[in-house]
Amino acid sequence: MIRIEGLIAAIFTPFNEDGSLNLPMIPAIVDKMAGDGMAGVFVCGTNGEGPNMTVAERMDLSKAVVQAANKRLKVFVHVGHTSIEESRKLAAHAAHIGADAISAVAAFYFKPTSVRNLVESIGSIAAAAPELPFYYYHIPVLTGVGMDMVEFLRLSQDAIPNLAGIKYTAPTLQEYQACVNFNNGQYDILYGTDEMLLPALSVGAKGAIGSTYSFAGPLYLQIMKLFSSGKLDAAQQLQLQCVEMIRRFLKYPSLPAQRAIMQILGWNIGPCRLPLKPLNAEEVADLKASLDDMGFLDLLAPVTEQTNHA
Amino acid sequence: MIRIEGLIAAIFTPFNEDGSLNLPMIPAIVDKMAGDGMAGVFVCGTNGEGPNMTVAERMDLSKAVVQAANKRLKVFVHVGHTSIEESRKLAAHAAHIGADAISAVAAFYFKPTSVRNLVESIGSIAAAAPELPFYYYHIPVLTGVGMDMVEFLRLSQDAIPNLAGIKYTAPTLQEYQACVNFNNGQYDILYGTDEMLLPALSVGAKGAIGSTYSFAGPLYLQIMKLFSSGKLDAAQQLQLQCVEMIRRFLKYPSLPAQRAIMQILGWNIGPCRLPLKPLNAEEVADLKASLDDMGFLDLLAPVTEQTNHA
Amino acid sequence: MIRIEGLIAAIFTPFNEDGSLNLPMIPAIVDKMAGDGMAGVFVCGTNGEGPNMTVAERMDLSKAVVQAANKRLKVFVHVGHTSIEESRKLAAHAAHIGADAISAVAAFYFKPTSVRNLVESIGSIAAAAPELPFYYYHIPVLTGVGMDMVEFLRLSQDAIPNLAGIKYTAPTLQEYQACVNFNNGQYDILYGTDEMLLPALSVGAKGAIGSTYSFAGPLYLQIMKLFSSGKLDAAQQLQLQCVEMIRRFLKYPSLPAQRAIMQILGWNIGPCRLPLKPLNAEEVADLKASLDDMGFLDLLAPVTEQTNHA
Amino acid sequence: MIRIEGLIAAIFTPFNEDGSLNLPMIPAIVDKMAGDGMAGVFVCGTNGEGPNMTVAERMDLSKAVVQAANKRLKVFVHVGHTSIEESRKLAAHAAHIGADAISAVAAFYFKPTSVRNLVESIGSIAAAAPELPFYYYHIPVLTGVGMDMVEFLRLSQDAIPNLAGIKYTAPTLQEYQACVNFNNGQYDILYGTDEMLLPALSVGAKGAIGSTYSFAGPLYLQIMKLFSSGKLDAAQQLQLQCVEMIRRFLKYPSLPAQRAIMQILGWNIGPCRLPLKPLNAEEVADLKASLDDMGFLDLLAPVTEQTNHA
Repeated sequence: MIRIEGLIAAIFTPFNEDGSLNLPMIPAIVDKMAGDGMAGVFVCGTNGEGPNMTVAERMDLSKAVVQAANKRLKVFVHVGHTSIEESRKLAAHAAHIGADAISAVAAFYFKPTSVRNLVESIGSIAAAAPELPFYYYHIPVLTGVGMDMVEFLRLSQDAIPNLAGIKYTAPTLQEYQACVNFNNGQYDILYGTDEMLLPALSVGAKGAIGSTYSFAGPLYLQIMKLFSSGKLDAAQQLQLQCVEMIRRFLKYPSLPAQRAIMQILGWNIGPCRLPLKPLNAEEVADLKASLDDMGFLDLLAPVTEQTNHA
Repeated sequence: MIRIEGLIAAIFTPFNEDGSLNLPMIPAIVDKMAGDGMAGVFVCGTNGEGPNMTVAERMDLSKAVVQAANKRLKVFVHVGHTSIEESRKLAAHAAHIGADAISAVAAFYFKPTSVRNLVESIGSIAAAAPELPFYYYHIPVLTGVGMDMVEFLRLSQDAIPNLAGIKYTAPTLQEYQACVNFNNGQYDILYGTDEMLLPALSVGAKGAIGSTYSFAGPLYLQIMKLFSSGKLDAAQQLQLQCVEMIRRFLKYPSLPAQRAIMQILGWNIGPCRLPLKPLNAEEVADLKASLDDMGFLDLLAPVTEQTNHA
Repeated sequence: MIRIEGLIAAIFTPFNEDGSLNLPMIPAIVDKMAGDGMAGVFVCGTNGEGPNMTVAERMDLSKAVVQAANKRLKVFVHVGHTSIEESRKLAAHAAHIGADAISAVAAFYFKPTSVRNLVESIGSIAAAAPELPFYYYHIPVLTGVGMDMVEFLRLSQDAIPNLAGIKYTAPTLQEYQACVNFNNGQYDILYGTDEMLLPALSVGAKGAIGSTYSFAGPLYLQIMKLFSSGKLDAAQQLQLQCVEMIRRFLKYPSLPAQRAIMQILGWNIGPCRLPLKPLNAEEVADLKASLDDMGFLDLLAPVTEQTNHA
Repeated sequence: MIRIEGLIAAIFTPFNEDGSLNLPMIPAIVDKMAGDGMAGVFVCGTNGEGPNMTVAERMDLSKAVVQAANKRLKVFVHVGHTSIEESRKLAAHAAHIGADAISAVAAFYFKPTSVRNLVESIGSIAAAAPELPFYYYHIPVLTGVGMDMVEFLRLSQDAIPNLAGIKYTAPTLQEYQACVNFNNGQYDILYGTDEMLLPALSVGAKGAIGSTYSFAGPLYLQIMKLFSSGKLDAAQQLQLQCVEMIRRFLKYPSLPAQRAIMQILGWNIGPCRLPLKPLNAEEVADLKASLDDMGFLDLLAPVTEQTNHA
């Protein structure tokens, strides 16, 4: 089954100024991710504002990304929704258009109340695309669903044949490590908190999915390379730069701030959607100054180049 | 503008055994609500499992209810969704089919972060059906959005011309009372916690929306009648019966338990949808015994009759 | 056993400017409470900053209040503490000095994990003063302990012989009503959310304990009188004034703001203790202006007079 | 100033069967910690049930530990309390008896409401023992106080002269890493989540404080040794064993389960105090079987020996 080594960028959805989908920009974004050395992209997730989009838009976007990727990198389609019926439609569509994997958060208006209930709910979605690898998207801080993930894997062994692993977005690395080692590493447990990538590597992470990989992927690849070649001090220094970068943009709401960084880097991906609000011009300027001040923008350029030509 | 005096039943969505919508049962359900003296019905809300349904299903159901109601009682269509775009489509559709009012929860994956942001988000939905009265659905325990509702009303005065009021589902009656009296009672603030109906009446509630009104509406109408005729002790006794009934079914998950009560009363509205799970046969039998034991099922019959023929 | 009809004022602890206890001011405070028609005082509770004081200070203050009360009104001593051993010492001391009742929150660093565990923990405290009536102080918003209170009463019947009732500080009036009616009204369930006094009366409250009764007790007594004589509209109007008053001071941290109101009314009770911070002079002036603006300070005077001479 | 490299064991408080302090057992416990290679002990903290003890007991225990340690290892005395006045007494006492450092959680009934307010509150405690190094005890899951720790350090630079660092008990390693590197490593940031020790080492931890170090300290020292000698795979395997061990005892309430492990290892430290409840005999047997089954008890012996004789 699928096994990711490297990084999956949770890409931003480009919108036009009027708020409609900007599909023509998709090829350039996918090219950037391929050029940055990403192993794949994660579409319509939290970072992609999937929950802000209509089902029809999610299908259109996913299709455009699959086509642009053209097998150069893996396409993960996020199909989570409050309605499991809509999730199943999105899953079947993802299979139809040739996505490489699907993923879904737990239902989050009515929430699963036990691990078994979670397995049943997630299994219902996974079963709508039985030929595709499925990753459960564990992100308790957003869904309010915080079950024991080791128990989830145990109960899923029989119940969800196409379960490939977990997109694990939580800081609880003890559970993450237990998941990575579950049944001799049966499942692919991708780490989802960018600012803790190095600690995750230290307990066995081989792959990760995250939002900041969309614009700083090469830096994180460098962390992975330094780590695997035993240069821990250098890895720490680079991780610290990423932590500081993230602390600086978190002075603003996370997703709008990251979209502003894309804009600063020359990507006109347009405004986010309500209830999210884009940073205003002054905030963008302040954020740019703050990132410049710590040398982050300078840091991005050479490493990107180095990675691209490696 | 619209002003509800009486009760709005948040109706259950009837499903077939295979999980599909059971639209042919709608007329009977609506007839029951009219017969029970309800002032209206609330469709596709929490109780109606709106978030468990597809947008297409929500439209189909709303249309069937509007047709069955045939102006005998008000139809409120809940259009809340994580995607404001989907909400806007649902709102426009509700206007198109002749609904009497619309209502929406705040977006709840990405959540509004300030009252102003909430007003902007809700205003965007309300503007998609500008001719219809709009009720903001305040239910912080489910959405995690718990803003100051008085401030919401204040900021909405200019921003949301068709705001009619709030479906206020929270126990904080001090804020409820302040909303009822905001600007000399400008808005229609409907109370949404059935087990606290009498306390809400004591601070000025004239109308309410709730799930248990679907099967015990006449009892609550009796509470309202007793209260308005000064018979507070009798009203207290009846409210206490309702509290005890609710405590008994809350030994099970709330919505499945209430659907079981419908089944006990002879309404085959089918199973709920995942992640919700229907009570099993033994649980239904136990619940029936528990409600029998407290005399609740006996209580329902005569009051229903009395109200119907009043 | 004890049964309170009327109001218990949760009094503020007077401190000197250097932060030490101002015991000489106690008689005047107690006289005011007696003059305002209070049925009793609650000492060293949340409002009294009991958790900010040392055990020795709590004993000194309680003794001073019992002496000043001199049986004119009931003295409830709050003995809650993270250490049940300290609570037991405080309870035994309260009995020794002649307090009329004791009360305690649940332990709140390590928290009870079940109703049975809560009963055992509270029972251990109550047993240290077996001759005194004990009220469990239910305030989940501060302690994080939110158990089913009806079940608590049920399990306490055998386990805590001197349980007199509950100081119930939560907005969930359905549970409150169920507690009031538990076993034909066996227990004395005092309501603890001042801004919802009228709703509590509507479901059977006869007594209440609260902080704002320390400075606005006569207004609330007036609400109780209007309610019991069937003048509900007038009671609503007066409750609305209290709600508005509370909304206005809650623009600041609650306890410091209420201490500032005492200061505005001429009571120099000194600063609160860290981590609480007193309002600064400008904030006090703004609060005074805000309360003046709504006519609250005018409202206090005549009602006080009327009540005192009734 | 003080700088810990190695492990501080948060020791359990030994109680007699009647619940009183078992001071005569202290020398043996301290000897074990010295023998296990611990750099110090943390007294009266969460694990030591400080909040369950009276101030007098806390003083007695701290004194006994300082005497038993006799400068062989560092003694940290936890002085946190809801009352800052009691904390200050405990801090002064710790200085008087010759403790090496003090530490305190934030006040947690009334909670600090801003970083500045936290600095002021903690500074007030630290100032009561100005000659002793002070560690702020950050444990948001228990206190509900979750401030930005980098900002805390920044504001403390001028405000708390004797601040030595933080006992950082939270899984957010990005913030931990930022604290470790604050102002070129000005402060000593000790990590407090045992099951994430290896990840913490990967971002720069040199010292840690934890409960399981009381009975499995040598295993964790082995992890540190393997990590610093570049044997990451072996470190991972050992950390995984610790994670599994902790997952197994967390099937029971944490602290009682850990006390049961001490009992299994032959340490009769007696029952915990309410609201905590000791495991019953059957649970202890099941826990022993579970730890045996994973080979944990076997694992403890040789490593202990190896470390002791290294």
